[in-house]
Amino acid sequence: MPQIDGERLLGDLAALRGIGASGPGVVRPAFGARDMEARHWLADRFEAAGLEASIDGVGNVVGRSRNSGPALLIGSHSDTQPTGGWLDGALGVIYGLEVARALAEDAGSRDLAVDAVSWQDEESRFLGCLGSRSFCGLLTAEIEQGISDGDGVALADAIAEAGLEGVARLGLEEGRYLGFLEAHIEQGPQLEDDGKLIGIVDTIVGLRGIDMTFEGQQNHAGTTMMAGRKDAATALFEFAHRVNEEFPKAMAERTVWTMGRAVLEPGAVSIVPGRAELSLQFRDVSTAVLDGFEEIVDGLVADINAKGKATATARRSRTPIAPTEMDPGLRAHLMRAAETHAAGKWVEMPSGAFHDAGIVSGVLPSAMLFIPSIGGISHDFAEDSHGTDIVLGCQVLADAAASMLASARP
Amino acid sequence: MPQIDGERLLGDLAALRGIGASGPGVVRPAFGARDMEARHWLADRFEAAGLEASIDGVGNVVGRSRNSGPALLIGSHSDTQPTGGWLDGALGVIYGLEVARALAEDAGSRDLAVDAVSWQDEESRFLGCLGSRSFCGLLTAEIEQGISDGDGVALADAIAEAGLEGVARLGLEEGRYLGFLEAHIEQGPQLEDDGKLIGIVDTIVGLRGIDMTFEGQQNHAGTTMMAGRKDAATALFEFAHRVNEEFPKAMAERTVWTMGRAVLEPGAVSIVPGRAELSLQFRDVSTAVLDGFEEIVDGLVADINAKGKATATARRSRTPIAPTEMDPGLRAHLMRAAETHAAGKWVEMPSGAFHDAGIVSGVLPSAMLFIPSIGGISHDFAEDSHGTDIVLGCQVLADAAASMLASARP
Repeated sequence: MPQIDGERLLGDLAALRGIGASGPGVVRPAFGARDMEARHWLADRFEAAGLEASIDGVGNVVGRSRNSGPALLIGSHSDTQPTGGWLDGALGVIYGLEVARALAEDAGSRDLAVDAVSWQDEESRFLGCLGSRSFCGLLTAEIEQGISDGDGVALADAIAEAGLEGVARLGLEEGRYLGFLEAHIEQGPQLEDDGKLIGIVDTIVGLRGIDMTFEGQQNHAGTTMMAGRKDAATALFEFAHRVNEEFPKAMAERTVWTMGRAVLEPGAVSIVPGRAELSLQFRDVSTAVLDGFEEIVDGLVADINAKGKATATARRSRTPIAPTEMDPGLRAHLMRAAETHAAGKWVEMPSGAFHDAGIVSGVLPSAMLFIPSIGGISHDFAEDSHGTDIVLGCQVLADAAASMLASARP
Repeated sequence: MPQIDGERLLGDLAALRGIGASGPGVVRPAFGARDMEARHWLADRFEAAGLEASIDGVGNVVGRSRNSGPALLIGSHSDTQPTGGWLDGALGVIYGLEVARALAEDAGSRDLAVDAVSWQDEESRFLGCLGSRSFCGLLTAEIEQGISDGDGVALADAIAEAGLEGVARLGLEEGRYLGFLEAHIEQGPQLEDDGKLIGIVDTIVGLRGIDMTFEGQQNHAGTTMMAGRKDAATALFEFAHRVNEEFPKAMAERTVWTMGRAVLEPGAVSIVPGRAELSLQFRDVSTAVLDGFEEIVDGLVADINAKGKATATARRSRTPIAPTEMDPGLRAHLMRAAETHAAGKWVEMPSGAFHDAGIVSGVLPSAMLFIPSIGGISHDFAEDSHGTDIVLGCQVLADAAASMLASARP
């Protein structure tokens, strides 16, 4: 059975953490100087592990096994949030590298093929899961042309700045892959709260976003009587509060919704707002729940517009993400390996966050493994996991990968 | 009876509008280059009218009559909102000038004393009613030291930039004044809606501001279950909506309240807000109504905090402004003059907006006259009034001023 090297694993994670480090956290947004430095470092580590490394035209780093297939593609992303934690993405990338090394070092598995990968821009500087979308053939020239980041930098300029202009882009090699595995920190508190060490993802939740706009009439806050007002903020507050009253009646066990952004215009203390915006997002494993929420929103919009004051409009803010089931066959291998190394300490669970595996699952059987996040904290400099949990998770992944590949030997 | 010169009045208003003009509107914030240009132009016009003009150390322009008292102080402010209308403030300043001229030109009133004034920074670039506060002895060195504008410019630097460093500041000359008169556009639709031409202010409404803070816990919007959230936005939406449900039960006829500013932090679509702020402001002529609203706020805060989720805190955002009654004796003169020139077309009404007269009334008997705003629009480039209404209002003010001063002749 392949044995991972925990010290080597933690050492590589620490080295990667050092590129773009900011206190305990990491600042390494996609295509920035630190991100590209990390990608070149990864390519070197992949080569040192005997893999054939390349960085493609959107920044994906792939370390290809010199063994013939069927192969497993294992990895995650090495770009971070603008103020990110050190394990979000990085954990899964170094797991891919360590699993490739561990299998190569074991007589029983050295003929098996593991390709390691770090996808580009999972964290949405330009487009969430840009790299895995490109690899899976979902990044058309039309989509790509319109993309810029929050500061107005065009994707094409960032690619050129990163030295990737004209570099070939990698895509799926037909017939090579048995599947894709992605390990990740949980980014929530459930594993820790329940005393579990391993989570095996059954479903990546579906996600829908709605942009609400409220159009009223801007007025002086002292001289415009209440009866004559068309206050956009009043409509927004009513809508948002009623969402929080109505959604619980239609939710399932793990449904979540969030209104994280609200803007009143002009936003002055003494001016009746003439316009307001609200972002609403909801996630669930069931399409029926998501459909039900959209119906509730439509009803609330109708209620507000029936008052004849500010006018509410609901518009989908993004392409909906459908709930995605992870591959049952790959999950069975993960469960067996988890039970071997963490008997009774693993659990099947949905992923509330979206991941590259949600993209890749459209073209390859895919599965995900979670390890606990201390305090459930993520997307924050304070993000952390226990070293023993990090090592255990990688060993489970290595065993599962070896058994997946062994059982598929031609 | 003194006769104002409507053409001269409208000509001076048009000339003042030209300083800082932006389309139909005016951009002349306090202490800026255009504001100071307007103040020097006003000083010249005051001198040309036979007044003794000076610009004091905070930018107040006073044109002092060469007649002995008792005198009336008449005016308003010539600074504007960042994107202001052409009449807000300017109307009352040019009325002061024109009334001084009209009384000086009439044999029966040429011995009467009218001092014209343009106060500085009524519109709160640094501090609302800065100039009248200074004149009334309310601007202490301690207050002044801490003041800066929204861009972080210190008041002292703006004063120096305007060439006013070390210039003496004017104050109330004991025994000189019978009172202060301020004419203003209504800034609301009531006069127009009711077919009236003149409003005589009985009370300037009281105003209280409350800054609400909601402290929760920032979290990932996909991985944090609803039961475990302390969502600051959820608390804000509930509070704001319940304000809009509860305040109507305790309001009076002309009570108004506004929540014009709301900020969610960090304000991202996929992050549960950890902190939120909301500004609440309310106005009424009755202290009891204002007190009642504060009690409602306290009750809502207690309700939200009893849930054990995000914590709400209410804090007064400013020194409360008490409702201020205008002087009944001066109002009687205004009413008589209004009935003379606009029989049945005038009305007593509160002022929903605050004005310099609300400050000056603390040290001098004060009164205010309103003329109609077209469509009730103000604090907007589209602000306007009919020329005939502008001329009529000034004639009413001139007659009232003459009769006030005549009846106080020693």
